[in-house]
Amino acid sequence: MSANWFRRRFLPGGPLPAPRPPRPRASPVPYRRPRFLRGSGSSPSTADASCRPDARPVRSPVRGRALPWNAGYAEIINAEKSEFNEDQAACGKLCIRRFEFGVEEDQEWLTLCPEEFLTGHYWALFDGHGGPAAAILAANTLHSCLRRQLEAVVEGMVATQPPMHLSGHCIRPSDPQFVEEKGIRAEDLVVGALESAFQECDEVIGRELEASGQVGGCTALVAVTLQGKLYVANAGDSRAILVRRDEVRPLSSEFTPETERQRIQQLAFLYPELLAGEFTRLEFPRRLKGDDLGQKVLFRDHHMSGWSYKCVEQSDLKYPLIHGQGRQARLLGTLAVSRGLGDHQLKVLDTNIQLKPFLLSVPQVTVLDMDQLEPQEEDVVVMATDGLWDVLSSEQVARLVRSFLPGNREDPHRWGQLD
Amino acid sequence: MSANWFRRRFLPGGPLPAPRPPRPRASPVPYRRPRFLRGSGSSPSTADASCRPDARPVRSPVRGRALPWNAGYAEIINAEKSEFNEDQAACGKLCIRRFEFGVEEDQEWLTLCPEEFLTGHYWALFDGHGGPAAAILAANTLHSCLRRQLEAVVEGMVATQPPMHLSGHCIRPSDPQFVEEKGIRAEDLVVGALESAFQECDEVIGRELEASGQVGGCTALVAVTLQGKLYVANAGDSRAILVRRDEVRPLSSEFTPETERQRIQQLAFLYPELLAGEFTRLEFPRRLKGDDLGQKVLFRDHHMSGWSYKCVEQSDLKYPLIHGQGRQARLLGTLAVSRGLGDHQLKVLDTNIQLKPFLLSVPQVTVLDMDQLEPQEEDVVVMATDGLWDVLSSEQVARLVRSFLPGNREDPHRWGQLD
Repeated sequence: MSANWFRRRFLPGGPLPAPRPPRPRASPVPYRRPRFLRGSGSSPSTADASCRPDARPVRSPVRGRALPWNAGYAEIINAEKSEFNEDQAACGKLCIRRFEFGVEEDQEWLTLCPEEFLTGHYWALFDGHGGPAAAILAANTLHSCLRRQLEAVVEGMVATQPPMHLSGHCIRPSDPQFVEEKGIRAEDLVVGALESAFQECDEVIGRELEASGQVGGCTALVAVTLQGKLYVANAGDSRAILVRRDEVRPLSSEFTPETERQRIQQLAFLYPELLAGEFTRLEFPRRLKGDDLGQKVLFRDHHMSGWSYKCVEQSDLKYPLIHGQGRQARLLGTLAVSRGLGDHQLKVLDTNIQLKPFLLSVPQVTVLDMDQLEPQEEDVVVMATDGLWDVLSSEQVARLVRSFLPGNREDPHRWGQLD
Repeated sequence: MSANWFRRRFLPGGPLPAPRPPRPRASPVPYRRPRFLRGSGSSPSTADASCRPDARPVRSPVRGRALPWNAGYAEIINAEKSEFNEDQAACGKLCIRRFEFGVEEDQEWLTLCPEEFLTGHYWALFDGHGGPAAAILAANTLHSCLRRQLEAVVEGMVATQPPMHLSGHCIRPSDPQFVEEKGIRAEDLVVGALESAFQECDEVIGRELEASGQVGGCTALVAVTLQGKLYVANAGDSRAILVRRDEVRPLSSEFTPETERQRIQQLAFLYPELLAGEFTRLEFPRRLKGDDLGQKVLFRDHHMSGWSYKCVEQSDLKYPLIHGQGRQARLLGTLAVSRGLGDHQLKVLDTNIQLKPFLLSVPQVTVLDMDQLEPQEEDVVVMATDGLWDVLSSEQVARLVRSFLPGNREDPHRWGQLD
């Protein structure tokens, strides 16, 4: 990504992007439920004939087909909200191959290891908005992006310490004076691979949606186990927690217009043309009205954690860049999340103002060392979209988990039956 | 500050700033030691005739003149490093007045409360660089900026909850539906006042140094007690800790090119012209050399917490935006801190590349509720510049404090005698 990419992509009057060759119009992304739900009797549409309009059917993987690592899955469909369930999920084994390079200097082909070199597991949740297409593409694509990114750095991951050079021909001896002091660990390469994979997947979604004329975006919450560590990568307002006998440990933070207020206001400060004169970047306790003019009211700008008072001017009456709070908080009056995949074409209704420059596709990654954790059989990782966290707190979910599981020890599907 | 301020100030080709009227050349900021050191026999210059060049004299307030709240102060001058000690300090009582407005609608004058309305205490440390002028100006100015900022919001600070409106004529009843939900507390106004005061002080320093033809910058670490709370505001690499019998609590975080890497790289990504083609914003484990070209090496960009590998191109051989680590880490090869006051004219040696756009003057503020803390007599807040923290850890300082104080209960100056 070039340094001028941002300006070319989002600002008027910047240098024009190189013209793209016309692409054949691709067919729309076909709708489908997660693979492991197939055959469980779920129809693609929430408007299933067997459902009453106010019904909230619960769907789980078909009996006898266990997910890896005793994982479970359940979804509750709000049939009134949308025609299709926009949530998607994926899970599976992550097989990382190692490429061996030829010995001779000018030998360019690769020898693929016949067997996987490293294996891990992968679970992902995608909460779609503006249509299911982005979430479906993410469920189909992100694991491949991640595998590719991991394969590109696997030599570094298996070294005692990632070497400074990862040459195409050989791994040069590193200068320990520099690499060691920086304290770069193998897990930093996995974090980097997750960050890059989310970005790569976002680009794929952007291309695919543009080609098929579809729109939409999704959040992404991913858990990966690899080399004795659990990685949780989150972009959006989903949440993962680890429920243990005596502890509820958060494994992710939520990214919403409220939690990322300062980053978003800072961008609007640096590039005010992104707001096209239609929005104010300042935060006020409520939308200001005409009779607030000239009054001193509470406000916050991008550099402030605290609050102050300012005298209301005409420009402060514009619609706020971030408005509302809690579940109602919206970025540019449009979007409830500030990170995720897709939304490349999303604009504020009836304007030319784009949302994408304010959105990050890069996740925050939490790393848990499984050896240090000494996991017990009753430990459970719960990953859920805001549909759960809007109605239950982490502690309430933990209580449910602890009360339900001990009485269902024999049921192989008990992990996905918390409804 | 207008939204276009950043571009006018820092970018070539932006709209020109309005021409300023020529100012009479001001005289340079006079050098002096902190007020409370006067008469303690300290000379302004570290090149004191009574000192051997390798001596490190310790200076404290004169006996019989206690600082507020049993505070102590000690400085160790490295006579070899610079002609003048660039560290400065200030402390005192913070008297906040309340302005009462006339009753009649069109009455514009104010009645000043004859007595202070709120009082607090203020302690501040400033670690200067590039000359002592910025630190002296900060020691002379910041408390006045803070008092002014607090007086502007004092009506809100003493309300049960800061009201939405702080009118010039009366405090309108707030709409609790909005203000209450945002959860804005009186302490948020003090945090906001500290943030604004640092910025105001930075502007004063910029004007004064420009007028007097001087240069330099400083870090700022401020502790304020007010309304039963302790506020610690930090911009730079100084540190405050609370030492208790069983606990060492950090009261601040350090801001250096390393700790603020992502913010600094992000700005260089959004405005690459700030680097004038001379620096690379990417981080590598060490400075790359010609024979790294074409190799895959470890790197990090602005969106990455983890590390990845990239193939080295010619532009990666440029000097890094942030280089070195620990005490050696430098921003643009020049500055060891990423927040502070001053440095308005600082440029990379022999170039036109400015440091100021990458620096923040706004502090991070920590709030401690003194009632919840239940402070004990042996509790001590230690505030120190990097001169201390480069050689002693927080835990080592805590051990010193705990071992020294109990044996010196009768000495009123014992708090400043930890040398």
